[in-house]
Order: sequence, then structure tokens, then C-alpha cells
Amino acid sequence: MTELWRSSILIIGNEVLIGRVVDTNSAKVARTLTMLGYEIIEIRKVRDNITEIAENAKDLLHISNVLITTGGLGPTYDDVTAEALSLALVLPLGLNERAKEMVEEKIKKMGLDMTKERLKMAIMPLTAKPIPNPVGVAPGIYIKVGQKRVFALPGVPAEVEAMLDYVVEELEDLSLFRKGEACEVLEGVREADIAPLIEEMAKTYPDIYIKTHPGMKDGTPYVKVCALATADDEETAKRKASKVVKAIKGRLGA
Amino acid sequence: MTELWRSSILIIGNEVLIGRVVDTNSAKVARTLTMLGYEIIEIRKVRDNITEIAENAKDLLHISNVLITTGGLGPTYDDVTAEALSLALVLPLGLNERAKEMVEEKIKKMGLDMTKERLKMAIMPLTAKPIPNPVGVAPGIYIKVGQKRVFALPGVPAEVEAMLDYVVEELEDLSLFRKGEACEVLEGVREADIAPLIEEMAKTYPDIYIKTHPGMKDGTPYVKVCALATADDEETAKRKASKVVKAIKGRLGA
Repeated sequence: MTELWRSSILIIGNEVLIGRVVDTNSAKVARTLTMLGYEIIEIRKVRDNITEIAENAKDLLHISNVLITTGGLGPTYDDVTAEALSLALVLPLGLNERAKEMVEEKIKKMGLDMTKERLKMAIMPLTAKPIPNPVGVAPGIYIKVGQKRVFALPGVPAEVEAMLDYVVEELEDLSLFRKGEACEVLEGVREADIAPLIEEMAKTYPDIYIKTHPGMKDGTPYVKVCALATADDEETAKRKASKVVKAIKGRLGA
Repeated sequence: MTELWRSSILIIGNEVLIGRVVDTNSAKVARTLTMLGYEIIEIRKVRDNITEIAENAKDLLHISNVLITTGGLGPTYDDVTAEALSLALVLPLGLNERAKEMVEEKIKKMGLDMTKERLKMAIMPLTAKPIPNPVGVAPGIYIKVGQKRVFALPGVPAEVEAMLDYVVEELEDLSLFRKGEACEVLEGVREADIAPLIEEMAKTYPDIYIKTHPGMKDGTPYVKVCALATADDEETAKRKASKVVKAIKGRLGA
């Protein structure tokens, strides 16, 4: 059953691999899917290379049922995600009429002309559905193959954020669970000292993910303890998580 | 020859996969290696799971010669990187005496006692060298197997930053090249409109990576054009990159 919730993220773009850009998209996507009850098995970042994108998309679809990609949907020569996905899924590429309308509508509003480069943004694997882009021009790509779902989003963070709503709408009813999180900062505590307690609590609550984040403030050590719980709804999950964090705090007399 | 410069990054930690934390380590490591002349083939992020870390480390060492990992070296139950690397590289684990001294020295200075959890940070694959940690307690792990080099660093960004100096020292003499970058913002320009020119320039300078980043400021579109060039030294590489960006600017009459 949990198989269905297995998901992964593929971030596409040389600018990420050369470290020019700090990728915030994967955290945003990961957070959204996690809270919706999905489990991110792996995140990968690859260059703008058709073969590398296709091979990695295939790998990730092998270990997960939902794949979200970002990047490589624009008008430039190195935007090759649509082609790579058609290669990975063995689906021929073609001009999507609905996507073409979306691009036309956008560029008309901007007072611009259609060019070969802009038209390219409407070419996607056949059987794909274009995802409306409320912020930029390039439509996203939604492909369903059996139980597997692939959502390709552009790389611009504002566009990813806006288009994630579409992904959530498609996925929220499929998920039977929701996640809820609780965190608390324990002052004057060192991570190594509470490690045995955390391990004990992790064993007591095997379905709750407990994690400590150590830090130092004004020369005093602290540990931020977070718990992530699963339940039928977000509120119950939050309550479960909060209970565990409070139990840890109580045990420390903090 | 270029084979030697192939490198990859493995980010370890559930907190990244659930999107609680925006990973800045991979960009920092990627930037440092890139400018040193190394090429990042892939970045992966995996959960705190021994098998998943080991399998992905093996995959990445298959496609690259330098692997940098971050995370999973601390004192808690879910810090399993040392164990995973020993599994991936088929090297038995053992207490490293030099690492033990490093941990002891740190905790003595902090007025703390040695515990099982703290001692765990000195256990690493045999034949590994511990990397001094000037900021935190956990030493890093440096393993050389044939031409392959693995550097395992902790996950705390300040520790990664400080310990990258060690990585650079080990790698800088191996690299025969350096990278140099130049960027320029072209105002009033749209990405799709300059796409044909960028493609032409990329073909004219096949060894220079040219990338456009579109944006909008006060209602006016702009494109940031960046070029990344390779040369014997950084200055020459920067000059080459700058020449290409200036040529693009000139062609646009901007």
C-alpha cells in the first residue's frame, strides 16, 4: 500500500550542478509532497543533458510512483526536459494544441510574436496534459503512465510555487494520510547527551520520525527536536508529533 | 583525461528529503569543486538509510572519481554514513585512533565526558583518514581507493564550509584547469528573443558554458547572461568568459 506514496524529485539544470544557484525548488516540492502524505525516496540533480535526464528519470520512476521534475522547459537550446521525458517513457513528442493556446495567449498579452523558440514550449510527449503556468510562459507537463505520475515544472521558483497547486490537486485525493510536525528548542542541551533518549523514543514510536538539530546561541548549546507523524488528518498528526516532543522535553525536565 | 575531474555529491539526511531544511551544502560544494576545474556530474539526496546511502555512493563512484558526501557523521542513532561507506567500498569499520584523539580533544575543551555516542564519531572505514573539524566535534572521513576519492563531511553548513579547505588542498594540485565566470544583466531583453543568438554563441564557443537567467524588474524584462570558461588559470578563464558575454552584449547593441 505505501508503495503508492513513494515519490522522487529530479532537478534539471547546469546552473545547479555548477553551484551558481542554490536550489530551493526541491525543498519546496519535498515539503509539499511530504505534508500531503507522500514519501520522498530520493532527490537528484542533473545537467541539461537529454541522456542523463532520461536515465535518471527512468531510475527514479523505477523506485517511486510520483516523479516531479523542475527545469528545462523554457525556450532556449539547453531546455530539453520534454524530449528527455519522451525518451524515458518511450512516448513520441508532438505539438500539444492546448499548450500551444496557452503559450499564444501569454505572448499575445505581452504583445510579443510567436517564434520557433516559443512554439517549442508547447511540444511535449503525446498523451501528456499541459499544466497552466500562472506566472511565466512555459506550460508544465503532466504524464500518467499506469500508476506512475510525472509532473514536469519549469525551474523558476515563483513558477514552481504557483504550479505546485495543480500537482497538489491531482495528488491530494490519492493520499489516505497526512503528515503533521512539531518542533521544540531545548536550551542548554547537547545533541550527544540526549542521543540515547532520542534513540529510545524512536524505538518506542517507530512510525514517528524524530530528529535533533544541534546549535549554539550566545555560547549556550541548544538542540531543536522535531517529530513528524502520520495520521488520517493533519490535526491528528500534529497532535501525535507534539505529544512525542513534549514527552522528550518532560524526560529531560526541561 | 577529463575522466579524472568527474565528481559527484551525495547529501544525506531525512530532514532534506522531507523538505524541512533547504540544503545549501550541495551548492557550496559544487561551486568550490567547479571553480577548481572539477565537473559535477550528479547531485543526489538520500535518507538516513544505510542501504540507500551505500547503493547511491556506489552508483556515484561508478560515474565519477571524486565523491563528496555531507551529513550522517554525528552522534545520533540515525547517523550512519561511516557504516554505509564501509558497506559501499567493502572496507571494514574500525576505531580510528587519530579520530578518537580529535574527538577527545574537542570534548575535553568543552568540559564534557566521553560517551559511547561520542566515541562512535571516531569509527570509520579502515584505511580512512580523519578530516579535522575546526567548528564541530565529528571528524570528516577521507578515503582513497585507487583513483577514486571520497570525502565525507558533516551536515552542519558551517562545518562543511570550514572542512572544504581540506578537500580543496587534497584536490587542487590534481586539477590541471581552473574555471572562470562572467555574468552581465541585459535590460529590456526577453530570453526567448535572444535564444537563437545564445544557441549560435554556444556553437561558436563549444568549450564555454553559456546560460541565460530571465527575470522581471519594475515591469521590465531582463536577462542575466553568464559564461563559464576553462583555462590553465582562473584569470585567463575569467577573461575568456568575459569576452563571450561582451560579444553577446555587443551583438544585441545593448
